[in-house]
Amino acid sequence: MSKIIVGVMGPGEGAGAQVCEAAFELGALIAAEGWVLLTGGRNTGVMDAANRGARSARGLTVGILPTRDAEGMSEAVDIPIMTGMGEARNNINVLTSRVVIACGLGAGTASEIALALKAGKKVILLGVNQEGEEFLKALGKGDVLSASGPREAIEMAKGLLAR
Amino acid sequence: MSKIIVGVMGPGEGAGAQVCEAAFELGALIAAEGWVLLTGGRNTGVMDAANRGARSARGLTVGILPTRDAEGMSEAVDIPIMTGMGEARNNINVLTSRVVIACGLGAGTASEIALALKAGKKVILLGVNQEGEEFLKALGKGDVLSASGPREAIEMAKGLLAR
Amino acid sequence: MSKIIVGVMGPGEGAGAQVCEAAFELGALIAAEGWVLLTGGRNTGVMDAANRGARSARGLTVGILPTRDAEGMSEAVDIPIMTGMGEARNNINVLTSRVVIACGLGAGTASEIALALKAGKKVILLGVNQEGEEFLKALGKGDVLSASGPREAIEMAKGLLAR
Amino acid sequence: MSKIIVGVMGPGEGAGAQVCEAAFELGALIAAEGWVLLTGGRNTGVMDAANRGARSARGLTVGILPTRDAEGMSEAVDIPIMTGMGEARNNINVLTSRVVIACGLGAGTASEIALALKAGKKVILLGVNQEGEEFLKALGKGDVLSASGPREAIEMAKGLLAR
Repeated sequence: MSKIIVGVMGPGEGAGAQVCEAAFELGALIAAEGWVLLTGGRNTGVMDAANRGARSARGLTVGILPTRDAEGMSEAVDIPIMTGMGEARNNINVLTSRVVIACGLGAGTASEIALALKAGKKVILLGVNQEGEEFLKALGKGDVLSASGPREAIEMAKGLLAR
Repeated sequence: MSKIIVGVMGPGEGAGAQVCEAAFELGALIAAEGWVLLTGGRNTGVMDAANRGARSARGLTVGILPTRDAEGMSEAVDIPIMTGMGEARNNINVLTSRVVIACGLGAGTASEIALALKAGKKVILLGVNQEGEEFLKALGKGDVLSASGPREAIEMAKGLLAR
Repeated sequence: MSKIIVGVMGPGEGAGAQVCEAAFELGALIAAEGWVLLTGGRNTGVMDAANRGARSARGLTVGILPTRDAEGMSEAVDIPIMTGMGEARNNINVLTSRVVIACGLGAGTASEIALALKAGKKVILLGVNQEGEEFLKALGKGDVLSASGPREAIEMAKGLLAR
Repeated sequence: MSKIIVGVMGPGEGAGAQVCEAAFELGALIAAEGWVLLTGGRNTGVMDAANRGARSARGLTVGILPTRDAEGMSEAVDIPIMTGMGEARNNINVLTSRVVIACGLGAGTASEIALALKAGKKVILLGVNQEGEEFLKALGKGDVLSASGPREAIEMAKGLLAR
């Protein structure tokens, strides 16, 4: 049996402090469930925070890097996958994640949410404003949920994984 | 000098008749400008309509296919690029297009718009509802324009290419 | 009907003068047949020479670039496809080419020959030494031919396309 | 610190019994070193044997799958990376591996060796015939080593990782 991989997607440089705190907590909670954390692997914003959170809880972390080497990689990534294919790696992020949690929203994150929906995956939104939530829920036709905080997001992920 | 490539992105199976008519006209107008039309290359919805429009005006068409062979390809594609990489090819679509015109909106199209913005490209929206326009303009911070019809979209593209 | 695309693969920086002359002639002959030339698109070695040859004969050229923009692109590429995915684009080169002609041999070219064989494509070798020919023919089990010069390579390609 | 990832590449359906035994032993030895095993992840040939070997020694295994889901995946893969990009994923295999060990040789493996050399990686050959060894060593200019068995391959990998 392969491990359960849960993806946390979110802004890099543009991520605010609150979103990064939520990402750290998400990473820790994912690790506590025994799941593997997947992120885009960079040493900034939501990616870095989620990886540090998972590491703080002794979890295993996979980073799907846009680069061909470790430059710019989060130090809390255990398994760095070097794709060398830039943002095209976003599709690998979502195909590989059993559930996708979007924490905050930038253009890259929006592409991951859209690719996840295209691939038939469920997406849990956290820290996305109301306008964004409404748009993405309309786009996702039932495949988009929204959580009020990291704990609720994890409960939702559990529910989706139990199906 | 390489040719000017303009991308038209839009839904496949889910595209309505009005959106397909607009895509056909876009294809024809792109060809009339002497530009090369780029689409996702499939034989359905906006992709197929835009290619047929360009061909009706004797334009040149490039299709960036998700598949590894010609199965499901629009018959009006002149240059089929077989990527064999599914939706990850959406990033190639936007990197290759000098300007991206989104005609209608589904999950795949939304991923292309978001990837285009991430890559610093300009996006022209056509046939996207108000909720979508507002969300995407907020996401794009000045890089997203909206057009009322195919002719206005082409004028906007001309303006962007002249910069 | 889409156009017939024939790929010419070969070394970039490491290409010798003789191999580049052969690549130029290949490009010109491909254009003279009315086929589209496909290369890796860079402004060096076999890629650049083949593109210049095709342009000298008023052919149409497609370059599948490893980069996300036009930096380092051959000026004789008409249709630049920006993949932003480095050498992973080699698989697109071979999937997109109806026939692959390898002109000279480096590590990148060897990867393209091997990927072509994996994809069930025919490969014509030109300017590959005897050791290389024997190895690649053993690897290709009947799918690898070798030509003594550009004209013979084109005749072989014609034969393969007529099947 | 991220974990040390060592790749084992080799034929799938075409792999002989001896090569599969070597792959199983390689997997077990990689696990015993505390390294992470990376393969192409499919449930056949060298990929499956190496994964089973690593699991038998309680190692951690990463499979970079050509598919978009788990169909055809080795049951001994812990971390399946779903690329959905066919053989283009071979470039990810080699970029992600600190050292590449080729165990047996088919067209796919040859593409991985060539891509590894293109990326400046070291490759250790095992179970490749003399003709193949000579060709690949000439191609690799000092970056290709050959081992007489799994234990020697692991010693070579250790030496390369210690640099």
